[in-house]
Amino acid sequence: MKYCSDCGTEVVKKIPIDDDRLRYVCPQCEITHYQNPKVVVGCLPTSGKQVLLCRRAIEPRIGFWTIPAGFMENGETMLEGALRETREEAAAKVKDETLYRLFDIPHINQVYVLYFGELDGDFGIGPETLESRLFSEDEIPWSELAFPIVTDVLTEYFEDRKTGEFPIRVSIPSPLWAKHVGWKLPM
Amino acid sequence: MKYCSDCGTEVVKKIPIDDDRLRYVCPQCEITHYQNPKVVVGCLPTSGKQVLLCRRAIEPRIGFWTIPAGFMENGETMLEGALRETREEAAAKVKDETLYRLFDIPHINQVYVLYFGELDGDFGIGPETLESRLFSEDEIPWSELAFPIVTDVLTEYFEDRKTGEFPIRVSIPSPLWAKHVGWKLPM
Repeated sequence: MKYCSDCGTEVVKKIPIDDDRLRYVCPQCEITHYQNPKVVVGCLPTSGKQVLLCRRAIEPRIGFWTIPAGFMENGETMLEGALRETREEAAAKVKDETLYRLFDIPHINQVYVLYFGELDGDFGIGPETLESRLFSEDEIPWSELAFPIVTDVLTEYFEDRKTGEFPIRVSIPSPLWAKHVGWKLPM
Repeated sequence: MKYCSDCGTEVVKKIPIDDDRLRYVCPQCEITHYQNPKVVVGCLPTSGKQVLLCRRAIEPRIGFWTIPAGFMENGETMLEGALRETREEAAAKVKDETLYRLFDIPHINQVYVLYFGELDGDFGIGPETLESRLFSEDEIPWSELAFPIVTDVLTEYFEDRKTGEFPIRVSIPSPLWAKHVGWKLPM
């Protein structure tokens, strides 16, 4: 942020009175422009023992597999956003939606809220997807998954299927993805 | 938003190519300025059969009782934010924190993520709090609670205590608060 979105004056970075961190503040209209994390919502569509994944048509991680997810929009609920992304990216509907997994990704200021749900009818692709298909556990392309959260959700989902219990977990993403894709973590 | 925060040019509202809703777009640098929901994080401190509430020193709902909560900051996890708000508003620490309740409040573009945790030591007040105190169930000032989510969380918490099961729920706030405070809902 360089300019005040309310009046167009150049902003300054300072700690406002009654605050304890640096903010963008407009010296003209004195508004503090807070920067806050964004919510990413998504849904893992399931069908029997299979899950639906989408191969990304856009950067980042073009060509890699992910679950339908994207930024939550103003005016919608988390579930509405998750279902919208499922329609947009996989041309799919789900039913019996269940809240399943929350992630904190503090270094990129994101929170993920993920559901799963039983695929209801056909599926296809949207403009941000090259291909979508159903995978059973032994078919998951672990080294071609787009993001750490996808590896975690799929690992946990197939583990939870064995017990039929799907506890809602919240954590930062694990290092599993990096291991699968051969990504070197900075020391 | 009236001006581009990147270059200071007046923005226009239009539907960008490959999009389906109105956005603020800069005609000069062509950046789309997305507006997304904010996350409010908080924690209900508990102590035996009591819960800790804070009486608000600031608007909105100055003088009414709430649980420690506030906007999640960049660079923190949801739990870190919830614990920070608990320190800031109730000068309190908690332990054994448990994710408990998610709310969608789409008409004000907010998502709430609430934990509960056992009060660990003393408590007090911060600059945004007039008073804080422990309440047992029969002492809760139902008609003086600040927000619908507070009514819902407390109602559910005392109900769940009876069974010892605290399922993670997600919903929009119920009309219970309006009933308790005598608020007339628009027809």
